[in-house]
Amino acid sequence: MIRLFTTGGTIDKIYHDANSEFSVGDSLLPELLSEANVSIPWQITELCRKDSLELNDTDRAHIRAAVAACAEQRVIITHGTDTMPLTAAALSDISADKVIVLFGAMQPARMRRSDAVFNLGFAMAAVTLLTSGVYITMNGEVFEAGRVRKNLKAGRFERC
Amino acid sequence: MIRLFTTGGTIDKIYHDANSEFSVGDSLLPELLSEANVSIPWQITELCRKDSLELNDTDRAHIRAAVAACAEQRVIITHGTDTMPLTAAALSDISADKVIVLFGAMQPARMRRSDAVFNLGFAMAAVTLLTSGVYITMNGEVFEAGRVRKNLKAGRFERC
Amino acid sequence: MIRLFTTGGTIDKIYHDANSEFSVGDSLLPELLSEANVSIPWQITELCRKDSLELNDTDRAHIRAAVAACAEQRVIITHGTDTMPLTAAALSDISADKVIVLFGAMQPARMRRSDAVFNLGFAMAAVTLLTSGVYITMNGEVFEAGRVRKNLKAGRFERC
Amino acid sequence: MIRLFTTGGTIDKIYHDANSEFSVGDSLLPELLSEANVSIPWQITELCRKDSLELNDTDRAHIRAAVAACAEQRVIITHGTDTMPLTAAALSDISADKVIVLFGAMQPARMRRSDAVFNLGFAMAAVTLLTSGVYITMNGEVFEAGRVRKNLKAGRFERC
Repeated sequence: MIRLFTTGGTIDKIYHDANSEFSVGDSLLPELLSEANVSIPWQITELCRKDSLELNDTDRAHIRAAVAACAEQRVIITHGTDTMPLTAAALSDISADKVIVLFGAMQPARMRRSDAVFNLGFAMAAVTLLTSGVYITMNGEVFEAGRVRKNLKAGRFERC
Repeated sequence: MIRLFTTGGTIDKIYHDANSEFSVGDSLLPELLSEANVSIPWQITELCRKDSLELNDTDRAHIRAAVAACAEQRVIITHGTDTMPLTAAALSDISADKVIVLFGAMQPARMRRSDAVFNLGFAMAAVTLLTSGVYITMNGEVFEAGRVRKNLKAGRFERC
Repeated sequence: MIRLFTTGGTIDKIYHDANSEFSVGDSLLPELLSEANVSIPWQITELCRKDSLELNDTDRAHIRAAVAACAEQRVIITHGTDTMPLTAAALSDISADKVIVLFGAMQPARMRRSDAVFNLGFAMAAVTLLTSGVYITMNGEVFEAGRVRKNLKAGRFERC
Repeated sequence: MIRLFTTGGTIDKIYHDANSEFSVGDSLLPELLSEANVSIPWQITELCRKDSLELNDTDRAHIRAAVAACAEQRVIITHGTDTMPLTAAALSDISADKVIVLFGAMQPARMRRSDAVFNLGFAMAAVTLLTSGVYITMNGEVFEAGRVRKNLKAGRFERC
């Protein structure tokens, strides 16, 4: 069983005509996993619907508690990209037998062209194959928590 | 550097109105990897454009030679699903330091709803994280060559 | 109220992995009309699910009877492209107050790139604005029944 | 020959990760018309890239001058939805032999689910079949300039 938690971010953004804005909507992950015809059982829980710049310490404590409390060993968290490294670091001291993978997207999953589905597939393989620890998987790479940053200008994650 | 070889199969099928049929077209992989904004360098080579039921021993020898000859350690092969396990087995005795991952799709990548992009992301993580050997990654699972079959009725891969 | 009848054809084709073939599936039209946020009421009825090369005289009589019997003045019929002109001609003598528009697609509506949605929008405007008669709308043009053929080689409809 | 002018609006919006915002990007219309395999020749010109709430009198004078000066009789204008009725009214006194159709979209054309492609097909048929005048085509309906408003709450256009 793989456990997925959603926290918001670009990946789940929808467009609202009424105010000409994007905001976080229902997660597309269940639909995307269904299209991918995945054999392994999974369960998904929404923790919040926020741009990651809006996540505060209380939100991070909430995410941390949910991950720590869940029965599953393999955990995926979708997250906005701007503060994903910060949340990853905040999860570092969860007990050593869990494999925790955070990912998100630079383009909403609802766009015709997006990195969301590729990133979901990459994260599912990573959470299956990695040993215990906290990781970020973006841009087709695996980063360890605490050693990764978003390069805002380049629009990609890199080691640091 | 990750090396990709394409051999055809459902993943790259296009629809021809003229004869009301599909056939294998240009691979969508370069476009999909571009959308995924992958950091790691990759190179793609077309080996053939066949339904996997049409692949014969000569084709498999051609695929085997290309994989054995390439300089890269990490190799991904897109392949039709029906005989993917057969080709995987035919690659088993390639020298021990290569990581070889085969994958395909049950729905063409050109369909709105397809497992192709998820499977591509999954394969990219798998080829990065697995130790040397020959693998099939389908339905969100990693299978070792020689221990996997396609369950045609269920429309998914399973261990055997 | 606009009445829509579906008869099959490329527009509604789905891909079956089990036999590596496309065949006519559930019509995507309700989903597409919902996405288009159409104000005018519509109702859709499936008459058959055939490639248009397989439509016989009995099928055409069935289509003709359904169109003649329906209460609505404005009628759209989705149809395979190969014999669409033949069916249009077979509907020519239906009573003079109906506006009947046939259309289809060269690429299935389920493909990422298809003429299906554009053609649906075009047909909806045509059935709203045309005077009574039987028409084919394809390739962004309006053709009168009896004066249109499919140019198979060019992959488009033309006057004749 | 059909002449198309783009002015911006939701239809051409793209998402920017760097600032978590959308803005008007290159128009997708050429790509969409190509996918629709339209026979009739068309030419497209970008006039501006603005949310329609940002369009001022100078912009409208610019749009008006471009439409009045173009050689083509049949003109389509893509436009943000919020002030589309205002621009349509500003074009009302252009010489009587032109057919001018304005349309836009409630969801960006780059979204998987959008009214953009349907609306484009509808507008192309409308500009072909309508007599001279200025019209808005949205939600599968034809509205005359001066007798239409956007119902922001309902998310659709209606007569007034």
